[in-house]
Amino acid sequence: MTSFLSEDNSVKAVLDRIDPATCPPRFAEIMTALVGHLHAFVKDVSLTTEEWEIAIDFLTRTGQKCSAERQEFILLSDTLGVSMLVDAINNRRDARATANTVLGPFHVAGAPELAMGANISLDGKGETCRFIGRVLDLNGAPIAGARLDVWSDNDEGFYDVQQPGIQPKWNNRGIFTTGADGVYDFIGIKPVSYPVPVDGPAGEMLTGMGRHPFRPAHTHLIVTAQGYHKLVTHIFVGDDPYIQSDAVFGVKESLIAPFEPCTDGQTAWQCPFDIVLAPKSA
Amino acid sequence: MTSFLSEDNSVKAVLDRIDPATCPPRFAEIMTALVGHLHAFVKDVSLTTEEWEIAIDFLTRTGQKCSAERQEFILLSDTLGVSMLVDAINNRRDARATANTVLGPFHVAGAPELAMGANISLDGKGETCRFIGRVLDLNGAPIAGARLDVWSDNDEGFYDVQQPGIQPKWNNRGIFTTGADGVYDFIGIKPVSYPVPVDGPAGEMLTGMGRHPFRPAHTHLIVTAQGYHKLVTHIFVGDDPYIQSDAVFGVKESLIAPFEPCTDGQTAWQCPFDIVLAPKSA
Repeated sequence: MTSFLSEDNSVKAVLDRIDPATCPPRFAEIMTALVGHLHAFVKDVSLTTEEWEIAIDFLTRTGQKCSAERQEFILLSDTLGVSMLVDAINNRRDARATANTVLGPFHVAGAPELAMGANISLDGKGETCRFIGRVLDLNGAPIAGARLDVWSDNDEGFYDVQQPGIQPKWNNRGIFTTGADGVYDFIGIKPVSYPVPVDGPAGEMLTGMGRHPFRPAHTHLIVTAQGYHKLVTHIFVGDDPYIQSDAVFGVKESLIAPFEPCTDGQTAWQCPFDIVLAPKSA
Repeated sequence: MTSFLSEDNSVKAVLDRIDPATCPPRFAEIMTALVGHLHAFVKDVSLTTEEWEIAIDFLTRTGQKCSAERQEFILLSDTLGVSMLVDAINNRRDARATANTVLGPFHVAGAPELAMGANISLDGKGETCRFIGRVLDLNGAPIAGARLDVWSDNDEGFYDVQQPGIQPKWNNRGIFTTGADGVYDFIGIKPVSYPVPVDGPAGEMLTGMGRHPFRPAHTHLIVTAQGYHKLVTHIFVGDDPYIQSDAVFGVKESLIAPFEPCTDGQTAWQCPFDIVLAPKSA
């Protein structure tokens, strides 16, 4: 016989309802932890009825803000540090390998495959920057055939897909494949910092906590090579004013790159950054 | 200088962003507990990226299922026992007072004010039942001028507002006010058990856990009287097959009433149930 729910036994009252005959073990494990933490949270803060109503309204509006172009629950997860925590748990790697970070909402599959040295800044705006480095294994040996899918915002802080008809299609996007020397080399722009969308519930939360909504400037990369773990990461601009306070907690020490005045005179800046991939079986 | 987010310091990394100069102390308290429990949950179960994606999709669909007629996040809160926990925390009362339980989504303000003895079953369907009892203070003295706002489903398990055009308006609803003897007395029906809506994410969760969606039969009451705490509660039918497994955990021992064959021959059943109100300053 189940006991009725009371303050003291509330977690047990709910968990007693799980039917082990039909509930998959992993789902039972997740619900057990979820109910435990959810009830403990309510008890820890002695949540008032009014606060509960505010929470229900907040979650409802978060779901209703989502559309084909906007995922407010991912933004909420990002700004609560949950996305990066999940990323960390699921991408534990050798300390020598380049760290993962969040994918973000602006990746588009199918960018143009370009030759090394190509310029991906199609609108010609922004401060030009040469990105150059090698894709290496844990021992420092070059990886041939590594595919780099790169993308960044433009000089005003917008990705091309945010400004269709204003920016050229595939502006600041391209795919590059390394040769035997593992070298990659392309021209883009020094990216700029930009705010995450603040016109929804996640923005209200940031304001409430006294937080700014900015992400420090970064260029995205997905690097894949046969036999190695897929790397989803950013190269961050080290002197960005928001480098210590990324609104989505995406920064890792090892992902901060120097952006130096360019020595060859062809671009304003150069960004040397080697990428190290972890083998799938190691 | 803030440290970057890692598995080990993820909670601190997020909480360090709270600006005490602008974040209201109560909001800081709530966010501190929320982030702590949310991250602990993710770590406890080593949430996979795929599971995180399922969770994002589940929460998004829960928000998008909400409409003017449907509140799926409240249903989720109800079926996770959170609503009853919040109710318990916010309505700690003298053990002699009648316990609170969930309001539910079907209360409608403005029901007809009726004289004692009136019949609220306007469609004439269902098994008739006389509800009779007294509204008392903690010492057993009758409370005059207590207002009872009562409502229940019909014999098919639907509230009138769920079947506009099919059920008469205000079917199984009424407001009664006690006289000097504190007695209330009206005729309705013996309510029947019914399922919460299962065509949304909360229903998927119930199915996943191996739970049925039924609520045991109950009649709702809101009882108010000057100088006493507002009581929001149900009278439950004790012999209901779901009395031990209410899908929303609303049952309390003291709210289970006898539904007895009626002795006066006027109705099929009678339900004697005294109501005890807690004073506002005690």
